[in-house]
Amino acid sequence: MTPSLAKLGHVALNTPNVEKSRWFFREVIGLDETAEIDGTVYLRAWGEFEHHSLSLTEGPTGIDHFGWRACRAEDVGAFAEQLRANGTAVEEIEGDTEAGQGYAIRFVTPSGHPFEIYHEIEHPDAPEELRSRLKSNVSTARRRGASPRRLDHINVAARDVPSGQAWLEEQLGFRLREFISAGSRGMVSAWSAVTSQVHDLALTRDLQGDDGTIHHFAYLFDSREDVMLGADVLREAGVPIELGPGMHGIARSMFCYLRDPGSNHRVELYAGGYHVFDPDWKAIEWTAAEIEAALIWWGPEYTPGKGHPFDQTTPCLAGPLSSV
Amino acid sequence: MTPSLAKLGHVALNTPNVEKSRWFFREVIGLDETAEIDGTVYLRAWGEFEHHSLSLTEGPTGIDHFGWRACRAEDVGAFAEQLRANGTAVEEIEGDTEAGQGYAIRFVTPSGHPFEIYHEIEHPDAPEELRSRLKSNVSTARRRGASPRRLDHINVAARDVPSGQAWLEEQLGFRLREFISAGSRGMVSAWSAVTSQVHDLALTRDLQGDDGTIHHFAYLFDSREDVMLGADVLREAGVPIELGPGMHGIARSMFCYLRDPGSNHRVELYAGGYHVFDPDWKAIEWTAAEIEAALIWWGPEYTPGKGHPFDQTTPCLAGPLSSV
Amino acid sequence: MTPSLAKLGHVALNTPNVEKSRWFFREVIGLDETAEIDGTVYLRAWGEFEHHSLSLTEGPTGIDHFGWRACRAEDVGAFAEQLRANGTAVEEIEGDTEAGQGYAIRFVTPSGHPFEIYHEIEHPDAPEELRSRLKSNVSTARRRGASPRRLDHINVAARDVPSGQAWLEEQLGFRLREFISAGSRGMVSAWSAVTSQVHDLALTRDLQGDDGTIHHFAYLFDSREDVMLGADVLREAGVPIELGPGMHGIARSMFCYLRDPGSNHRVELYAGGYHVFDPDWKAIEWTAAEIEAALIWWGPEYTPGKGHPFDQTTPCLAGPLSSV
Amino acid sequence: MTPSLAKLGHVALNTPNVEKSRWFFREVIGLDETAEIDGTVYLRAWGEFEHHSLSLTEGPTGIDHFGWRACRAEDVGAFAEQLRANGTAVEEIEGDTEAGQGYAIRFVTPSGHPFEIYHEIEHPDAPEELRSRLKSNVSTARRRGASPRRLDHINVAARDVPSGQAWLEEQLGFRLREFISAGSRGMVSAWSAVTSQVHDLALTRDLQGDDGTIHHFAYLFDSREDVMLGADVLREAGVPIELGPGMHGIARSMFCYLRDPGSNHRVELYAGGYHVFDPDWKAIEWTAAEIEAALIWWGPEYTPGKGHPFDQTTPCLAGPLSSV
Repeated sequence: MTPSLAKLGHVALNTPNVEKSRWFFREVIGLDETAEIDGTVYLRAWGEFEHHSLSLTEGPTGIDHFGWRACRAEDVGAFAEQLRANGTAVEEIEGDTEAGQGYAIRFVTPSGHPFEIYHEIEHPDAPEELRSRLKSNVSTARRRGASPRRLDHINVAARDVPSGQAWLEEQLGFRLREFISAGSRGMVSAWSAVTSQVHDLALTRDLQGDDGTIHHFAYLFDSREDVMLGADVLREAGVPIELGPGMHGIARSMFCYLRDPGSNHRVELYAGGYHVFDPDWKAIEWTAAEIEAALIWWGPEYTPGKGHPFDQTTPCLAGPLSSV
Repeated sequence: MTPSLAKLGHVALNTPNVEKSRWFFREVIGLDETAEIDGTVYLRAWGEFEHHSLSLTEGPTGIDHFGWRACRAEDVGAFAEQLRANGTAVEEIEGDTEAGQGYAIRFVTPSGHPFEIYHEIEHPDAPEELRSRLKSNVSTARRRGASPRRLDHINVAARDVPSGQAWLEEQLGFRLREFISAGSRGMVSAWSAVTSQVHDLALTRDLQGDDGTIHHFAYLFDSREDVMLGADVLREAGVPIELGPGMHGIARSMFCYLRDPGSNHRVELYAGGYHVFDPDWKAIEWTAAEIEAALIWWGPEYTPGKGHPFDQTTPCLAGPLSSV
Repeated sequence: MTPSLAKLGHVALNTPNVEKSRWFFREVIGLDETAEIDGTVYLRAWGEFEHHSLSLTEGPTGIDHFGWRACRAEDVGAFAEQLRANGTAVEEIEGDTEAGQGYAIRFVTPSGHPFEIYHEIEHPDAPEELRSRLKSNVSTARRRGASPRRLDHINVAARDVPSGQAWLEEQLGFRLREFISAGSRGMVSAWSAVTSQVHDLALTRDLQGDDGTIHHFAYLFDSREDVMLGADVLREAGVPIELGPGMHGIARSMFCYLRDPGSNHRVELYAGGYHVFDPDWKAIEWTAAEIEAALIWWGPEYTPGKGHPFDQTTPCLAGPLSSV
Repeated sequence: MTPSLAKLGHVALNTPNVEKSRWFFREVIGLDETAEIDGTVYLRAWGEFEHHSLSLTEGPTGIDHFGWRACRAEDVGAFAEQLRANGTAVEEIEGDTEAGQGYAIRFVTPSGHPFEIYHEIEHPDAPEELRSRLKSNVSTARRRGASPRRLDHINVAARDVPSGQAWLEEQLGFRLREFISAGSRGMVSAWSAVTSQVHDLALTRDLQGDDGTIHHFAYLFDSREDVMLGADVLREAGVPIELGPGMHGIARSMFCYLRDPGSNHRVELYAGGYHVFDPDWKAIEWTAAEIEAALIWWGPEYTPGKGHPFDQTTPCLAGPLSSV
C-alpha cells in the first residue's frame, strides 16, 4: 500500500530567544503549553487534540523540521524505504526524542526543506481548569491573545518551484490546487495539499534565489472577524503587523502577517480558504497579468519583487543542507 | 484497491410543485440553474464546479436518491460488485440518465435510504455574465437570496442507528466523528464522513420509528454572519424559519432550519463545523445527560421527543423500499 | 432653558451576594472594577470614560436607582424644581455619596421606577497596564469574559404603559421610537430615548400587573459576532442562557438574555440597533398581529403571556415606592 | 432659541457622466432611486426614510452642496440671519428646487465648502415590491451591490484647519471629538459632529494647499463583515479599490475607499465608529508621533504627504467660491 500523509502536524522552531518566543506564542498568539522538556517548549491551540503543533528550542533562528503525520504507523517506514530508493538521505529518530511522539524519520527535500514524518503522537487532555464543555474543543477558546483554532499550513521557498513541486507530488502525494505561472518562466508559486484543504504547503520561488527557505507558517482562525480581532491584539501588544489584514485571491483567504519577536520568523493569522473534495480538481492557474488579484484580492498594496520586506525569506537550516 | 467515496455530490428531490421549489431554491436560497431537461431542473451554488448539487423532478414529495461521488471511475463498478456480494440489490444507471453525469449505480441502504454512486460528472463553466474574477468561485457570490457556497451534508433517520451506522462504515467507508449514546439504548445519533468534514451524513433514530426517512439536507455558508443574513432573506421572503438560527454543540456549527414550500422538505442553512485530519480521531460521545448542550449549544429551545415539529421526518421514497 | 438628559449613566444594583455578582460581572461579563468603597463595588466597560456604569451593593435583590446623566450641571437642580412643581417627591443627594459622582437627585417615576439624575462624574484613567493604545478605548478590550463596549439601555415594566410613557416624554424628554399597540388595550410596550439610540429605555406592560419592576438592563457589543462569542463565554462559565442569542424585529438588535447568578437580575448582551437623527421621526407601530416578528425576528420561540420565565420581572425596590 | 443642525442629510454631486455615476451608485453601491427630475437623479439607501441622501446632476465634477438638516423649521431662517450677521453671504432657495425638499439656504463656509441647510423633506414610502417586513428599514436590504444602511459623514479639506474648525463649532454647533496636532503647526485634522456620531464631518489640511476641497463622503454599513463583502462587490464589478479595507485608529472605524467612475469622486464604505453621549467629552488628541496608528490602526500602508493618490482632493466647486 502506498504510504500517505494525513496532515501537517507541527513546526519545530529554533529561536535565539526562547523566552520572548514563548511570550509571543503564549500571550499574543494565545497557544497553551503542553510540556517543557530539556529546554524545549511544546505548545498547541484550543482545537488541537495532538500533543503539540509548535515547539521552541534555543538555537540560531531556523526551522529544525516541519512535522508531517503519516496516515498509518507502517507508513513511516514505508516512506523511509521509498525515499532512500529515490536517493534521499533519511535519518531515523527514536520515539520520545520529541515529546509525546513515536518513531519518526527526517530528511531534506530537494528544495532544501527539513521534513519529519511520524505517526504516533500522544493526545493529552487539557488540565481540568482549561477543559471546554464543547467536546470538540480540547480547551476553552479565547482565553488569551488572538487564539487560533489550529496550525494550518506552511509557505516555503526555493529556487526551482516546478521541480520542487513535482517531487512533493510524486514522493509525498501532494495534490496541486492553485498556481501562478509567469510566462516563459513557468510555475513560480504552487499551492498544494495532502488534505482537502486548498493548501497545506505553498512552494514559492525565492526572490533572493535561495533554496531551503521559509516564508511563514500559519495558524487558522474560525472567521475573518477573528483575524481582525487578532490584529487588535497585535496592536495592543505592540507587535508590528508586517502586512494586512487583507484578502488573498489565491486560496480565497484572509491574512495578517507578523513576526515572532523572539525568532524573527513570520507567522500568518489565517481564515477562510476552501476545501476540495473533487477527485479531479483542475488546478487553478493565475497568470502574470492576474498576479495582483491573486495575491491581494483586497487590502494592502503589495507587488512582489519590489523590495518589500515581505519578499524576504529566512533559511530553515543554519548549516549546509546535507547536515540533517 | 478498496473503492472509496470522495464526497456527497447531490440530492435528487421529488417535489409536487416544481415551480414553487424552483422559486425557493433559486430566489430564496440563491442557487443557479445549470440545466432543465425533461422537466427536471438542475441547480448548483457559486462554489460548485460540478454540474449540479440539487435536482428537482415532479413527483410525490420524496428523495429519489442521494448522489455520492466515487474517487475513481473504476470504484463505481467495484462498489456494485462489493454491495451485491453483501446482499444489496444494485441497479445500474447508464450515463446521461441524469444530466451531466456518467455511469452510476443505485441501491437502498439497510436503513432504507436511496443512494447513488457515480464518478463521471461534467464541470460546466458559468455563463459569462455570471463568472467570478475570483477563480475558485464558479460564479459570483451573493447575487440573489441567501447564497451558500455548496451542498454540505444530509441528515437521515431510521429505526436502528447502530446497525445502520455499522453498515455505512463497513460498506462505504464512513468514519464516525461524534455520536449520542442514550444509556441502555446505545447510539441514537451518529455523525460520520467520507471527507475530512465533521460529517457528510448524520444518521438519527427516527422518533416515529420509521426507516428510510430524511430529516434535512444542508447547504454550507462561509460564516455565521452569512447564516444570519440568510435568516433575514427568509423573513423578507415570507418563508417561515422552523428552528434557529442557533448553534449546535455537536459539530460546533451554526444552523437555521426551514422548509422548501414546494416540497415541504427541510433544508438547513449551515456554517462552521470543523475538519478532522487526525487518522486516529476518537469519536466524541455525548451522553443522554449532555444532550441539551449537544443539540443546542445556544439558540432556540428544543428537546427531542416532545412533539416539536422539528422531530418530524419525511419518507425518502413513496413506495416500498425494494422498488428502487 | 429646559433641562435635558444626556444619557443613561449607570445602574445601581442591590444583590444579596456581592461576591457572586462581582465574579459574574467581572469574570463572565468582563467589566473592570474602578473602586470599592464601603462595600459597594463600582465597575465599567472598556468603552466607558466615566467612573462606573454599574455598582453592586449588598441588600435584598433590587435596583437602588437608574442613574441618568444631565446635559449641564444646572439641569440637575432645574429637574428637581420641575419635578416638584409637578408633584413628584425629590430627594437631594450630596456629592460623593456615590463614588466619583457629584450632586444628584432621586425620585420615583409614576410607574414606580427609582431614577437618579446627576451631572458631575469623574473620568478616571485606567491603570497603566490596562490602558489601550486605541485612544477612544479607556482600556484594552477582550481581556476577560464577554467584554462589552458600554451600558446601553434598561427595560422596565409597569401596569399602565401609556401614562408611564407620557410622563417620561413630558417630564424627562424621552422621544418615542417604536411601540406595540394591542388593539383596544392601546400601547403595551414603548421604546424611547433621550439620545439618538433607538432606545435608552423600554417600558413594557408588566404581565403580573405590577408597577416598578425591571425586566433587564443591557450592555452593548460592537457586533453580532461579539454577542455569539459572548454566548460561548456563558456556556463555558456554566451560566445558563435564558433566551437567545436571537434577533429582535423591534430595534433591529441582536439579544442574548441571562441572569446574574448573584442577584438573579436579568442582563442582556446586545448588539445592533440603529440611530435616529431625523427630528421628525414617526414612531413605528407594531400591531398585535405583528408581535411575533416584532419580538423575535429570528431565533428562539417566545410568545409573551404563555408563562415563559422570560415574562417574569423583578421589583426594583423591596419596600413601598414612597420610601425612596 | 439657538438654531441647531440635526444631521448630514445629503450630498449633491455634479458628475460629467450621470449614467456611469448612476450605474455605480445603483448597481455597485446598491442605492435605490427615488426620483429623476430635470435630469437630476435622487437616491437613498435602505435605512433612509427621507427623500434622498445623494443627487446626481450633470456638470463638471464637483459638489453642488452638502445638505444639512436643521432640527426645526424655524432654524433655517435663524441660521440665515445669524450667518449674515457674521458676514457670510447666504442664498435662499425656494421649496421644491430640490426634489422633495422645502425652503433652504445655501452658503460657502470660510474654508470654501458649499453648505445647504433645510428642514422640510418628504419621507416617501418605498415601492411596494421593495418594502421591508422589518419596519425600521425603508426597503429590503442587500438586494443589489454593497448595500449600505445610510449616508454617514463627509471629509473635506482646506488650508487652515484651526480657523475652519472654529467657525464650524461657533456658527453651526459642531463638537470636536478627535484631532491630530502636528507640533508647532497645530491642529491639522479635526473630526467633529452635530449628532452623537464620532464625526459627521472631518476637516483636514489640504496637502495641495487648496481651500474648498473634498476628500470623500461615506456610506455606513452595519458591520465590518459588510464592508468586506462590499470590497468583494467592487472587485467583481471591476471598480478599483483605492485604499483598504482597513481600520482607522481615529474614529475606530473600518474603511474601504474607491472612486465613482462617473465623477471620479472618492467614496468610503464605512463601518464601526462609536457614539459620544458624554456632554463633557474631552476631544482626543493624536500627536504627529502617533499619526500612523491614528490613520491606519491596521490594514494598508499609508503615510500622508508622500504622494499617495489618496492625498489628492477635488475642488467642491468649479468656479470661484463667491459664485455660489
